[in-house]
Amino acid sequence: MIQHVDDLRNFIRTVPNFPKPGILFRDITPLLAEPAALRLAVERLADAIRDRNPQFLAAAEARGFLFAAPLALQLNVGLIPIRKPGKLPSATITHSYSLEYGTDTLQMHRDDLPKGARVVVVDDLLATGGTVEACCRLVEKAGGQVVGCAFVIELTELKGAQRLEMFHPVSLLQFEGE
Amino acid sequence: MIQHVDDLRNFIRTVPNFPKPGILFRDITPLLAEPAALRLAVERLADAIRDRNPQFLAAAEARGFLFAAPLALQLNVGLIPIRKPGKLPSATITHSYSLEYGTDTLQMHRDDLPKGARVVVVDDLLATGGTVEACCRLVEKAGGQVVGCAFVIELTELKGAQRLEMFHPVSLLQFEGE
Repeated sequence: MIQHVDDLRNFIRTVPNFPKPGILFRDITPLLAEPAALRLAVERLADAIRDRNPQFLAAAEARGFLFAAPLALQLNVGLIPIRKPGKLPSATITHSYSLEYGTDTLQMHRDDLPKGARVVVVDDLLATGGTVEACCRLVEKAGGQVVGCAFVIELTELKGAQRLEMFHPVSLLQFEGE
Repeated sequence: MIQHVDDLRNFIRTVPNFPKPGILFRDITPLLAEPAALRLAVERLADAIRDRNPQFLAAAEARGFLFAAPLALQLNVGLIPIRKPGKLPSATITHSYSLEYGTDTLQMHRDDLPKGARVVVVDDLLATGGTVEACCRLVEKAGGQVVGCAFVIELTELKGAQRLEMFHPVSLLQFEGE
């Protein structure tokens, strides 16, 4: 079977009932396994955010790293990793945020960003936007300016793009709950 | 201060006493923040493993993803993510291994690799080699053939390269305990 690389949807696998019953999980691993598809996704993300003139990308572990690292090279900008607590060795800034059940916490290095640096936050998937919003707040606490956020996949029903409107969200592929 | 990009050591920060007293942590975040340095690291990793003729790279979350993703594009090969339990949505293969204290478990998708596929395992740092050895075992359980493993940093005192000798380890930067 020939899969047309220029339709990146062919490289997203839908897995029903993961991580729990009733959820359709959009799986990016087929896209990662085909370098022409990964390259195209990275090029399209670059095209989508280039006019935001980012000086840095920021991305949260783990899946965000898979797209942010090649995208940083494509755009020739620095990459700031955002991590779970206890992973970054130098002085950090911390932001905690609410999840559906409980809270989660993310950290970035305190001195990574020049004051006012233009930052685009990158992740593989936009759902409710909670994690990305937390990343944006971290960047702001660190003195950066969030000028955009970019996703491979957007789950439109969860209205994350509305929540993140002030951060100019863009996505390559939109999925409804179908 | 001008930092010479061609000496990648200039972009590794040593943080003493992290994650615990007496440990010198080699921090890759300055390298990530400078795209010329990240690009050079990726190009040198590609040069170091190209003659192993990999068809896929495999990398464990989270820091391994930062190098494996751009390296997969540089070599034009697929990328197989190796993850903590419960993260991959489809049928998985699991491997548990011993750490200094306790055990850890990694998973990859069962059907990611064609039988006999040539795989290079990539990570940011080689310490004792326990995690990378677990990744190699996973690839073998999945029917792949580990033809190499590649690291940005090697902590030579911990003798991971000897442990992984059968997997042809290569590293860009070697650090003793200094």
